[in-house]
This record gives sequence, C-alpha cells and structure tokens, in this order.
Amino acid sequence: MIPKLDVDTLTFEQLAKTIDHSLLRPELTDDDVVAGCELARRYDVASVTVKPCHVALAARLTADSDVKVGTVVGFPHGSHTTATKVFEAKDALANGAQELDMVINIGALRSGQDDMVHDDIRAVVEAAGDKAIVKVILENHYLTDEEKVRACHLAEEAGAHYVKTSTGYAPTGATIEDLKLMRASVGPDVGVKAAGGVRSLDAALEVIAVGATRFGATRTEGILEEFKTRL
Amino acid sequence: MIPKLDVDTLTFEQLAKTIDHSLLRPELTDDDVVAGCELARRYDVASVTVKPCHVALAARLTADSDVKVGTVVGFPHGSHTTATKVFEAKDALANGAQELDMVINIGALRSGQDDMVHDDIRAVVEAAGDKAIVKVILENHYLTDEEKVRACHLAEEAGAHYVKTSTGYAPTGATIEDLKLMRASVGPDVGVKAAGGVRSLDAALEVIAVGATRFGATRTEGILEEFKTRL
Repeated sequence: MIPKLDVDTLTFEQLAKTIDHSLLRPELTDDDVVAGCELARRYDVASVTVKPCHVALAARLTADSDVKVGTVVGFPHGSHTTATKVFEAKDALANGAQELDMVINIGALRSGQDDMVHDDIRAVVEAAGDKAIVKVILENHYLTDEEKVRACHLAEEAGAHYVKTSTGYAPTGATIEDLKLMRASVGPDVGVKAAGGVRSLDAALEVIAVGATRFGATRTEGILEEFKTRL
Repeated sequence: MIPKLDVDTLTFEQLAKTIDHSLLRPELTDDDVVAGCELARRYDVASVTVKPCHVALAARLTADSDVKVGTVVGFPHGSHTTATKVFEAKDALANGAQELDMVINIGALRSGQDDMVHDDIRAVVEAAGDKAIVKVILENHYLTDEEKVRACHLAEEAGAHYVKTSTGYAPTGATIEDLKLMRASVGPDVGVKAAGGVRSLDAALEVIAVGATRFGATRTEGILEEFKTRL
C-alpha cells in the first residue's frame, strides 16, 4: 500500500523523495547528464530519469547513493512493437536501470484493443521482474476520460507499480483533474505519478495533495530551494 | 546517383513517387492506418511510413502494389541504445518493412562523440542489409549548421541512403536553407528527404527545387489534387 503524503506536514526529505529528476530531452549531452546526476545526489531525490543511452553512465554516477536510476521504454510515442519494448527494458536493466517508465500503445487503446494494451504492459512488467518497478505512461493528452480509466485498469491488471499522466512531450501534461481520476481508478497498491508541467513548488504541492507520490521535474533545484526558504 | 527532379517538367507520377505518406502520429488507430494505406495506393505514392506496431498491417494492405512500407527506428528522440535500434530494425524487416527512417543519437552528436553517432547509424545500415534503404534523420531543430554538416558526413560514411531533416515532432521542421546545406554536404548517391512542414503543393515544389527527392507528408491528398488542378 502506497502511503499518502500530507502536504501540511511534508518534510524536505519526503518532498525530495517524490521527485524523479528528468534528463530526457533529446538534445542533452553527456555533460548535462553528469551535472544532472550531481544535482540529484546533492538533493537526494528519488531518481534520475535518463535517456536509454545514458543508463550505464547514470548508474556509475549514482552508484554510492540513494538515488535510483530510471529510464524510459517505448518513449515517447509508445508505438514500438512489444518485442522492441521488451528488448529495450532488458537492455536497460542490464545497464543498471532500477525504474522503467514505459508508454502504452496509445493507438491500440484508442482502437479498443485492450488485450494488446494489457499484454504490452505485462510483457515489460515480466521483463522487469523484481529488478525494477514499472510506471505506465498513459499520455492523457490523446485520451478521453473513459480511455484514461480503462488504461488505469489495464495497467493495474498487468502488474504496474505506477500509472503516470504524461511523457512531457505531448502538447499538454499533468492536470489535477486527471490525477484525481487516475488516483480513483487504481487500487491502493498502485502509485500515481505526475509528469509534464510541474514547474514550481506550488504545482508540486498541488499534485501531492491529490495523491501523486512521484512527479517528474526538470526544475528540481528551484522547487526544493523554494521549499527550504518557506520552511 | 540520385537523379535530380526538374520542377518545370515534373509529372504527376514523379511527384507522387517523392511522397512518403506519414502515418506516425502516436494516437492513430488501426482504422486510420487502413484509410491511409488505401489513400497511398490510390495515389501510388513512394511509401507509407507507419508506426513500428503497424508494419505488418501495412505490409498486408499494400502487398499487391508499388507502394513501399516504411517505418521508423529510435523515433522520435534517437535516444535509444544502438542495441535497441538494431533490434527494432530487424523486427521491422521481419514484419515487412522496406524503408527505415532512423533518428541519430542527437545528444552524442552534440557531445562530439562522432564515432558513436557513426557506429549507431552503421549498425542499422548493416541490419537493413539489402532488404531496406535507410534514411537518417538529423533532427535539425537541435543542431548548429556545423553539426548538421558533420551529421551528413557521418551518415554518408555509415552507408545511409538518405539524410532527412526532421522527425516532424520537434518544434521546427524542414527549412529550405537546411535542405540546401544538406544537399551540398552529401555526395550524389545520397538522397535528401524533407520532413515536417511540407503542407502544400508550393511547399513541396520548393523542397524539390532545392534537391529533395523525397518528402514526408500527411496532406498527401491535398498536395496531389492541387497538382492535378494546376496541370
């Protein structure tokens, strides 16, 4: 069961451990990843989420820390075949990934192919085994509310650890309404992660207040420094 | 050697055979792909470019036609490991793909890791063998002119058949300046493909005039019907 965070009594450490520091932009260089991992260690956040090609580097840079290494699978369109997603997941685990954020097959969900969506997620969950948790990105921008709820159910049935709102690369990202809908659509053992648009402390506190226990951020330093100032 | 097209004497058939009809949007359903392949056959375009998960479907739908089936590798961020790109390429070939549009490792190019960029492309070219042509997407939006030229040289050295401006998913797409620069940066055996922003007949004729012999389009029907009207 995922413990709910209380915004009124939230500590610095708790807030830091809700952050997946995102280093996914396609143009990021190795130097950017080195700096990002250093920042993640300094603030002791939950994880760095790096591009697949940077997993081995990030694993070395965070080896003696409590910061986990996360990466993405089938990102950001989710349109890869299941076979490719499974290969990519195993490749990431071999390189040291401990968290996998995978994108569902959006077109299959919208085509009503629920079995395919489920099996695609399930295959990645099985590849992850007990080596990594799996967060399932719905990419809400393209979905109706009915489709979001259906995707939540399919992700939970397939054994996902989290459902996640967005990749950050669609025209829109996390909304409070979507987070409430997703929190209500999965059981207590499944977490909800916000991504795309959490750019300030207030935005972070808002997503936590409606039940998100992780969020993706690029402005990690600004959010955490602002929290220190307010304390 | 790629024959240059003459805009003044261009025939309907020649124009149609410069078009890769794009069906890559993450939210596209199976029905959208069926309709798109039907359109591609009706106009006898060069190819349909479908999401990896739709290659087998598109191969069935275009089997008895001159429309080739293309798909994408490492799309749209190019941040996958080389191992995953190679797996994805082989998977696509097994499903019936005849053209592969791969994205370079943008961050590696910007980090000055030219060997890695070359080897990443080369591995996909080798996986394609004589079964598919490989178009190498630079994603110019993130690159300086010097980086675009360097990427063209690396793609040609690695055996690519085309260099391509963009994925269509970065903030900007093909520009005339970039097409001229790319055409000047590769030899006569390497084609140049425009993608992202070719939305009218005039735009199509402009990219052809500066040496593009393929372009990606979603407004294929509008462009070709307008050409018929002008004839």
